[in-house]
Amino acid sequence: MDKPQIGVIGMAVMGKNLALNIESRGYTVAIYNRTGSKTKAVATEHADKKLVPSYTIEDFVASLEKPRRILMMVKAGAGTDAVIKELLPLLDKGDVLIDGGNTFFKDTMRRNAELDKSGINFIGMGVSGGELGALQGPSLMPGGQKEAYDLVAPVLEQIAAKAEDGAPCVTYIGENGAGHYVKMVHNGIEYGDMELIAESYNILRQVLGLSVEEIADILKDWDQGELKSYLIEITADILTRKDDLGTDKPIVDVILDEAGNKGTGKWSSQDALEIGMPQSLITEAVYARYISALKPERMNASKVLSGPKPVEIPEADRKAIIEKIRQALYFSKIMSYAQGFEQMKMAAEQYNWELDFSKIAPIWRAGCIIRAQFLQEITSAYEKDPKLQNLLLDPYFTDIAMKYQAAVRDIVTLAVKNGVPTPVLSSAINYFDSYRAQVLPANIIQAQRDYFGAHTYKRNDREGIYHYTWYEEQ
Amino acid sequence: MDKPQIGVIGMAVMGKNLALNIESRGYTVAIYNRTGSKTKAVATEHADKKLVPSYTIEDFVASLEKPRRILMMVKAGAGTDAVIKELLPLLDKGDVLIDGGNTFFKDTMRRNAELDKSGINFIGMGVSGGELGALQGPSLMPGGQKEAYDLVAPVLEQIAAKAEDGAPCVTYIGENGAGHYVKMVHNGIEYGDMELIAESYNILRQVLGLSVEEIADILKDWDQGELKSYLIEITADILTRKDDLGTDKPIVDVILDEAGNKGTGKWSSQDALEIGMPQSLITEAVYARYISALKPERMNASKVLSGPKPVEIPEADRKAIIEKIRQALYFSKIMSYAQGFEQMKMAAEQYNWELDFSKIAPIWRAGCIIRAQFLQEITSAYEKDPKLQNLLLDPYFTDIAMKYQAAVRDIVTLAVKNGVPTPVLSSAINYFDSYRAQVLPANIIQAQRDYFGAHTYKRNDREGIYHYTWYEEQ
Repeated sequence: MDKPQIGVIGMAVMGKNLALNIESRGYTVAIYNRTGSKTKAVATEHADKKLVPSYTIEDFVASLEKPRRILMMVKAGAGTDAVIKELLPLLDKGDVLIDGGNTFFKDTMRRNAELDKSGINFIGMGVSGGELGALQGPSLMPGGQKEAYDLVAPVLEQIAAKAEDGAPCVTYIGENGAGHYVKMVHNGIEYGDMELIAESYNILRQVLGLSVEEIADILKDWDQGELKSYLIEITADILTRKDDLGTDKPIVDVILDEAGNKGTGKWSSQDALEIGMPQSLITEAVYARYISALKPERMNASKVLSGPKPVEIPEADRKAIIEKIRQALYFSKIMSYAQGFEQMKMAAEQYNWELDFSKIAPIWRAGCIIRAQFLQEITSAYEKDPKLQNLLLDPYFTDIAMKYQAAVRDIVTLAVKNGVPTPVLSSAINYFDSYRAQVLPANIIQAQRDYFGAHTYKRNDREGIYHYTWYEEQ
Repeated sequence: MDKPQIGVIGMAVMGKNLALNIESRGYTVAIYNRTGSKTKAVATEHADKKLVPSYTIEDFVASLEKPRRILMMVKAGAGTDAVIKELLPLLDKGDVLIDGGNTFFKDTMRRNAELDKSGINFIGMGVSGGELGALQGPSLMPGGQKEAYDLVAPVLEQIAAKAEDGAPCVTYIGENGAGHYVKMVHNGIEYGDMELIAESYNILRQVLGLSVEEIADILKDWDQGELKSYLIEITADILTRKDDLGTDKPIVDVILDEAGNKGTGKWSSQDALEIGMPQSLITEAVYARYISALKPERMNASKVLSGPKPVEIPEADRKAIIEKIRQALYFSKIMSYAQGFEQMKMAAEQYNWELDFSKIAPIWRAGCIIRAQFLQEITSAYEKDPKLQNLLLDPYFTDIAMKYQAAVRDIVTLAVKNGVPTPVLSSAINYFDSYRAQVLPANIIQAQRDYFGAHTYKRNDREGIYHYTWYEEQ
């Protein structure tokens, strides 16, 4: 066997699958895990493959071709720092260390700066696609030193998913934490997409009274058009599945309505708040998970707080309403991506990255959880205008927004009248109406702030900073 | 003159006014400012008062009665650390240092722990009421060592605002950062209140086409009832004021619709995201300020994105709609406070504080920006049940929510149909409908998470953690 051209640390499912993916492209891969038995299990199970197991980190590092290329797939946080600490004395200038975990971008910025002092290149790389994506082709979002990226690009391009046009779903994102930032926003968008599907399902179920099977058929139909995407596809599939413990119910009807989360959606909202970006859809999607998780409290509240009487829907209106729900979902998805991309744009200014969205949008077209036909439209928009202020200003998206706004108004109204919560669909229309508003009532807020706190205000008819004498100063 | 019983550092308007407030209660007050000219100006302007100026921090500390009681009113952040560093070698065990700035609660937790090592008591105290409140009686939210609070309580109780029943608007909040946390949530709630008034104003103006003067009268009327509050009162007053630069327009019509912010609303949302609390109303209020601040971008977007044709409102319906807006505003205010108080409850668990809301709610009844008759209702609710899970479960609030929900549904619908953004009113009804929902569509989200990431799920019919075989594992 060749000397391994790359090594993978961490043999949990993501690390193992990425190692196997790399090996399948013709590389010899060094593997290492803190608990040696896991390394051994992988090596034994795949004895026919060019995997080189090591049982000490020293052996692992020594086994690698130079400059070394090491991919860490360990639990994000203190674990990552611990591995880096062990590795640091063993590495040489010019080596490339890649963190493929779901790391908070500010940690990546810090680590990149620290390792840079020793001449070690540090790449923070977002990896999306789940277990299967890791094995067959994920979407990869690497950020760090450009020259280090170039050293690993051939491997990354081979293991990444390929879009329909054959382009690999990987590109150099930007300096230090840019890759993990983009992955964080990707995950936030994923929260939004999932919640929008859940809200649409809920209206179909609670307001139209459709069965799980009927909704599965509707989603299959939607997956043929503009909404074509992995998440619509798997949701349609999910809705066809029966309980595997024999109740004969659809599996979704026995799954508890408490959504968990692993924190990256939360981070993207926290940073939107930090940098001044109105990222309402993702945030409402995060909150929707949080309130779902308060199930015992909700059950308790449901005993004292009741809702309105359901509105009767004439049979003849159903088809039109289903189409409106589809339009509302697509409209809202566009608002969510418009916010997500604008967040990345504002983050680039804040954190000094040069992000090229005409290169970033296409790498989400395949491999990752949010892959969708729609990402081709976003790609085209940024190819036409890489400096586009907001997706809504691209003609394709302007056109859809204008055509579908009536549907989302009707659906939000229908849901609100029926007492069915639609926090993200509602945020979508509110964002649209705020974003296109020449005048918002923030003049009232500024007047209040100036009144009680002398915070001053600007005027709409001349330059300058003003304070009004609301009352005699003491 | 007596030896000063207390000292104030920082002679900007808040520090100066608090010093004067303390002095007016019979105390001799040491004053100090980094820039001595400011200290001198205050001492000269108030030469008849028992203010003892010092021009070095050593003299300032030496001038004080022991155990020393020092109130810092300096710009939050690095400035606070700098002052503490200068003070530390000059202080003795048992001295009490109070930070009355708008400090992030985690900084207060850190400083409290650090100073505690030297036996110095550190109180982080929220101060609300603006400049006038500082002088005449603010609402005070002190957190830190209980025994240190007891040493300063007599002063704080004298300078604090008094509620209608004569109770001072100050109480011991809890350990370390609890006071600043409660102040942070107070400010978040303030953002929500202000935005709700702004949205109501906007509907009255944009949908009903009322004049500023007519809206002023409506708000004056509202200020006589359930909504009676400082913010409604000042907004009514603001709406009666003419431009002071002679355009003859109402002043609000020349104030630019770009709202600023100083960060505490943002912090409260970031921490809600951190601790898993669905705090959607405050967050949407923060985002409403952010999107208002994107004025040039909105002006640009308004050229390509237009809204629906306004719905005609028959003259005969106006009065009923105005009353519905009032109900929607009160309903939404209740939702916002329900979230705010539940956030503090969850924070208490997270950060190990014992918060007694039957003591905290009453100190917001006077002095602070969110003072309102309504806080007496909240006080009563927590006096009846200090462990109340959520305000909505108190009979008074349950009753209002049930009675007014129809109005908020109508008003949100009206606004959405008219293209007038109501992000916080919309969040209010969505929170209500989510909170009282026995079943939310989070089962779909859990199924999706299990499908693409093997994240597992719980069932609604039996205990345990499950994973479904969605496809053949590789």
